[in-house]
Amino acid sequence: MDNFAFHNPTKILFGTGQIAAVGQEIPQESRILITYGGGSVVKFGVLDEVKAALAGRPLFEFSGIEPNPTYETLMQAVELVKRESIDFLLAVGGGSVIDGTKFIAAAACWGGSDPWDILLDGGATVKTALPMGAVLTLPATGSEMNCGAVISRKETRITLPAANGANAGVSMITKSQQDKLYFMHPAVYPRFSVLDPTKSYTLPPQQTANGIVDAFVHVMEQYLTYPVDAKVQDRFAEGLLLTLIEDGPKVLAEPENYAARANIMWTATMALNGLIGTGVPHDWATHMMGHELTALQGLDHARTLAVILPAVLEQQRDSKREKLLQYAARIWDLHSGDEASRITAAIAKTREFFESLGVATRLAAYGVTAEAIAPVLAKLEQHGRFPLGERQDVTLDASRRILEASL
Amino acid sequence: MDNFAFHNPTKILFGTGQIAAVGQEIPQESRILITYGGGSVVKFGVLDEVKAALAGRPLFEFSGIEPNPTYETLMQAVELVKRESIDFLLAVGGGSVIDGTKFIAAAACWGGSDPWDILLDGGATVKTALPMGAVLTLPATGSEMNCGAVISRKETRITLPAANGANAGVSMITKSQQDKLYFMHPAVYPRFSVLDPTKSYTLPPQQTANGIVDAFVHVMEQYLTYPVDAKVQDRFAEGLLLTLIEDGPKVLAEPENYAARANIMWTATMALNGLIGTGVPHDWATHMMGHELTALQGLDHARTLAVILPAVLEQQRDSKREKLLQYAARIWDLHSGDEASRITAAIAKTREFFESLGVATRLAAYGVTAEAIAPVLAKLEQHGRFPLGERQDVTLDASRRILEASL
Repeated sequence: MDNFAFHNPTKILFGTGQIAAVGQEIPQESRILITYGGGSVVKFGVLDEVKAALAGRPLFEFSGIEPNPTYETLMQAVELVKRESIDFLLAVGGGSVIDGTKFIAAAACWGGSDPWDILLDGGATVKTALPMGAVLTLPATGSEMNCGAVISRKETRITLPAANGANAGVSMITKSQQDKLYFMHPAVYPRFSVLDPTKSYTLPPQQTANGIVDAFVHVMEQYLTYPVDAKVQDRFAEGLLLTLIEDGPKVLAEPENYAARANIMWTATMALNGLIGTGVPHDWATHMMGHELTALQGLDHARTLAVILPAVLEQQRDSKREKLLQYAARIWDLHSGDEASRITAAIAKTREFFESLGVATRLAAYGVTAEAIAPVLAKLEQHGRFPLGERQDVTLDASRRILEASL
Repeated sequence: MDNFAFHNPTKILFGTGQIAAVGQEIPQESRILITYGGGSVVKFGVLDEVKAALAGRPLFEFSGIEPNPTYETLMQAVELVKRESIDFLLAVGGGSVIDGTKFIAAAACWGGSDPWDILLDGGATVKTALPMGAVLTLPATGSEMNCGAVISRKETRITLPAANGANAGVSMITKSQQDKLYFMHPAVYPRFSVLDPTKSYTLPPQQTANGIVDAFVHVMEQYLTYPVDAKVQDRFAEGLLLTLIEDGPKVLAEPENYAARANIMWTATMALNGLIGTGVPHDWATHMMGHELTALQGLDHARTLAVILPAVLEQQRDSKREKLLQYAARIWDLHSGDEASRITAAIAKTREFFESLGVATRLAAYGVTAEAIAPVLAKLEQHGRFPLGERQDVTLDASRRILEASL
């Protein structure tokens, strides 16, 4: 086991009815900004429930935080925060709203000239942030109990020549954001997060499935590297994977199955709250490539992961051999046959699991072709991501092979 | 899964050499009291290492905190804290030193007349406590990452008539403390704890074994109850049990096996930091009976647990049936035979595991006879412990049967 520091100060309030406790968690004198996305928290009454729990308090609202929340939108909230002397932020939604609110919290206290720098330096120059809490509606990213956030910028869209020769010379603007970057800082750990599984009952199946895949891949990126004899971390990771495999299909089949929704929600939180990643190597190659694919091609975040992960496992099967065999045995009960066939079968099982949730695992299924690869590699290079992987051996060339294997 | 709140703010610094970081974790202006037990932290250089990390800082020392730390000893430290205006406590040792330091931290800020009341009300009237940190040398109790403490009081020893009729009328004073009680309060979470596995290399085998049993029983008391479909908590608990079973014998055979010592240390911390106990029923019957046995008979804490737990499982086998079968299958790989025989085998395996560590599982092995039972039951009643168990069905009579089955 490698040396580590672990410190997660977020208070979790888990279970049905816990939104009512929000009022006690926010200092009495606070001027509170509730942040959210689009219509679902309004439509299904979550916003009303939150406001009822804060009745009589100075409340402000900021809506319109997008999936892949953008700098441009969030900076409007930062202005509102300053104008109204907001001193507590309450995110109501999924990972995008919580991530976006973390950026608002940090940017509102930012001393530099352009808060986008927070993303460019990964959070290194953040000093402080407004306190924030969260009410989670979509189990997926773990943002409700960690100090990271992923933010996109749409201002400078990428310009590509039209593929069709007939339009030669006519440039096209893609629909996607150019940049999707992350930052991390202890100041943006939510002070508390409410995890009420019933609030995930109304999620569309695609979002439910995406959340399961996102959590699964978070676990894999902290687990499927090389062994360092960290038995607790390995077994915790395996426990999360098995729970996703068992209860993922269940929540899709029975959206109002409380026990299964609760297990999925707690699993997604535990998948990326730092605990299973303590003292072990990490491999964030899948996420790094996935972020660029989302930024350039507009694919759902989780769908990029479902495409990239199996290709990463396949391309890195030699350097990940020992953990792939452990994964094959403990997760997929694969004990017979030679090592190579067990590894092949485990990767196939992973792909089948994602597909069984309705999440395609090939770029082709999303209409993305080989031409998309070069821009992704260029962006990875521009963002200083190489080399990737737990052994720092996923170079630009290796990444090209992974992306080609994802087609 | 039941509703829950989870909030654990302790920062963990894990690994070899981490004591050097202690200075950065304690506010610069603090007047620091280092608390410890007997000779081992002096003899093996841990104390010197801590003092070197705090060189030039205002340091005070309080030694002599016993196993089963006593109110009488700790109140001397409280006086020292007040006299020297101490404002940070640093516990260096195992669970007894850390527990004792939590009491010092709370008692030093106590507004009432007698800090023993903190134990009598379980911490309910604690308002605040001095900040504290810990340097752990003995993985066992989990005190380094929780907000509980167990304190004994020796002042009023129990008076029993001599067993031998020849001495009729001559009262005898037992050697043990009369009371062993616990309190819990969020104010006594350590601000940080250093977990350096190399500091456990020099533990005597009996203390190493006791620590493994203590952690094992902590897990069981949060796991072996009745199912509430809490898959993450179950699998995390099972991961801890399997790690103790695998690496427990290893650290006894190879005291300087870093990987195994690290796994045992992290397991013991995770066994009682609140995480595996979220949202599930608990059964602390074993600990409650064990505390009285230690107080009255002077048995090591872990040895009381090794004796009581198998008897609790046996006596409660009907109400714990489903989890006993899950435990049999997932921990001991018992899949064949009828339910009753699998449960019997799982309990036998538990007993064998403790015995394999050199920890006897019968009261007789410690020279404790049936006469010891009535005083234990009387103390449990006096302390208001009945009914015990996750279903509140372990009455005084049921406890008598458990203790008789422990002989």
